[in-house]
Amino acid sequence: MNWLYLCISFFLCNRGPKVTWEVIFRVLGKDDVSLKITHCGICYADVVMSKNKYGDSRYPLVPGHEIAGIVKEVGSCVSNFKVGDHVGVGTYVNSCRECERCNDRDEVSCEKGAIFTFNGIDTDGSITKGGYSSHIVVHESYCFRIPDGYPLASAAPLLCAGITVYNPMMRHKMNQPGKSLGVIGLGGLGHMAVKFGKAFGLKVTVLSTSISKKEEALCVLGADNFVITSDQEQMKALHKSLDFIIDTASGDHPFDPYMSLLKTAGVFVLVGFPSEVKFHPASLNIGMKTVSGSVTGGTRVTQEMLDFCAANKIYPKIEVIPIQYVNEALERMIKNDVKYRFVIDIESSLK
Amino acid sequence: MNWLYLCISFFLCNRGPKVTWEVIFRVLGKDDVSLKITHCGICYADVVMSKNKYGDSRYPLVPGHEIAGIVKEVGSCVSNFKVGDHVGVGTYVNSCRECERCNDRDEVSCEKGAIFTFNGIDTDGSITKGGYSSHIVVHESYCFRIPDGYPLASAAPLLCAGITVYNPMMRHKMNQPGKSLGVIGLGGLGHMAVKFGKAFGLKVTVLSTSISKKEEALCVLGADNFVITSDQEQMKALHKSLDFIIDTASGDHPFDPYMSLLKTAGVFVLVGFPSEVKFHPASLNIGMKTVSGSVTGGTRVTQEMLDFCAANKIYPKIEVIPIQYVNEALERMIKNDVKYRFVIDIESSLK
Repeated sequence: MNWLYLCISFFLCNRGPKVTWEVIFRVLGKDDVSLKITHCGICYADVVMSKNKYGDSRYPLVPGHEIAGIVKEVGSCVSNFKVGDHVGVGTYVNSCRECERCNDRDEVSCEKGAIFTFNGIDTDGSITKGGYSSHIVVHESYCFRIPDGYPLASAAPLLCAGITVYNPMMRHKMNQPGKSLGVIGLGGLGHMAVKFGKAFGLKVTVLSTSISKKEEALCVLGADNFVITSDQEQMKALHKSLDFIIDTASGDHPFDPYMSLLKTAGVFVLVGFPSEVKFHPASLNIGMKTVSGSVTGGTRVTQEMLDFCAANKIYPKIEVIPIQYVNEALERMIKNDVKYRFVIDIESSLK
Repeated sequence: MNWLYLCISFFLCNRGPKVTWEVIFRVLGKDDVSLKITHCGICYADVVMSKNKYGDSRYPLVPGHEIAGIVKEVGSCVSNFKVGDHVGVGTYVNSCRECERCNDRDEVSCEKGAIFTFNGIDTDGSITKGGYSSHIVVHESYCFRIPDGYPLASAAPLLCAGITVYNPMMRHKMNQPGKSLGVIGLGGLGHMAVKFGKAFGLKVTVLSTSISKKEEALCVLGADNFVITSDQEQMKALHKSLDFIIDTASGDHPFDPYMSLLKTAGVFVLVGFPSEVKFHPASLNIGMKTVSGSVTGGTRVTQEMLDFCAANKIYPKIEVIPIQYVNEALERMIKNDVKYRFVIDIESSLK
């Protein structure tokens, strides 16, 4: 045991979000990077896990898997990072590093299972603790270089919201200028899909249930078209017109009406978790359509995305908050009352 | 009107299958090929349409879209076929021939809609009539060359059953030796998927509800593995082991257990028409899996498949019957009592 790090963390208990301060430990291994966390994005997973919606939350729970910070210390064998570097950590902090998937740097699909950044059981049996914290110690393989000049607050949401849409967009070759993309849901993920879509040269249509998002979608995010999905005429006009759809909605909705918007051989990507996926086989078979799923992405594509965002000046739209506001922020997340991602300014909160 | 052709056809009425003989007309156009039909396969669509299961059957109905025959006459502008050629006709006999899809020879996805071989409304308003007939006249664009020496009786089922599985198998790059394929359902389509899979060098597992098919699957069709899907242990042993699944089952079944058999990035192809497709989003998202649909295929890939079958000596397993047996054959189709495709020997039936 070479080093011992003390962290100030913000636990959430199962009686609802509650901020307390505790001390946690993690020894700095030879391949580890110790980060001073400056910012952490709030993902809907933080709400789900803090409220134990899947029944597998392990308390005390430290949420947060959109982490940005500054390297404070590195282990003796760390080669890619040095003290002072700006570094991000996403949704996983360990994997087997031996399987085909890990060797392909698609660690999120590790054959033995990636270890999630919080509420995961690490290989040593400890429960992982996330980014609502002053520090974190992570194996360098799961750390990302935040490009020079890219704001740390903006980088944080890229590590989950950003990569969750970027990865399937690249995998399904959506970076073809002139093609058309429909984006279902305009939250943390959806607004990034719009931004990536525009950067790829796509014609982007936002598919929404709420007219209140129209002006922002078109004038702020730069979407080309905005359709209210309950409007039959608007939906009819879109029939068989889209090459791709990315569905970021977290709630339940019918799938057949959206699939009818796809051209022949069109691709529908699901990144949300509704209670079920259900459609008529003709919606799939006629026009040989594809429905594909995805969760975040491996380290190779994540680093690629960070570099792409820096090169193309793509920034998530965020509301920066102090840690003391986290209870209210989580409640507002439930009401979709955020444009489009809360980011906790950890550093300033501790001053 | 240059030519007038008379055909003997076998209508099925809506009071159940019934053979009558009638005369139908079709003028031979300058781009048309007139075929003397020798064989016609019986597809489950023939059952569905003759029994008006979708409520859109137009009587008198002449089923049959797995047609093989010999060219009897050609129009003045026909360039690809001559009298005496062996020719096949599949599930469609017309399309716009102008759209992007038609130009790609993917006419089944024609933007204006392909005209089905029977019970379709052709551009002149006539109702198309299929292969339970002595003759058919078809635009040469929708005729296929049956390779020299390939039996006409065997060629017939390739035009629907064969292409329905070959097309998505090629589209999803299943022709990679050493990869693994699961085949759900061992009927007209499923047994062809096994044959194509083996020809592609895949490790083929038949997923079946009936132990009675085991010996035939392994010893006659050459599958590598046979799994009874109700056997939890057998299914568990297959967990995350398959690169591809092709689902040819026509009946309803759960999807999640099959999707759990796919490796990361695995592809599940649906070619059947259950009443609905339903699964949990985690079955799709975790391991970024894909569900894709398909119906038959365009003329380019259909001709490719016919040539592939001839080159690789792939023949569907058929039971040849006279037209007089068609009522009983259709009833046996409903009971899945056929290995694996009925083919009507039209020519001999008329002697």
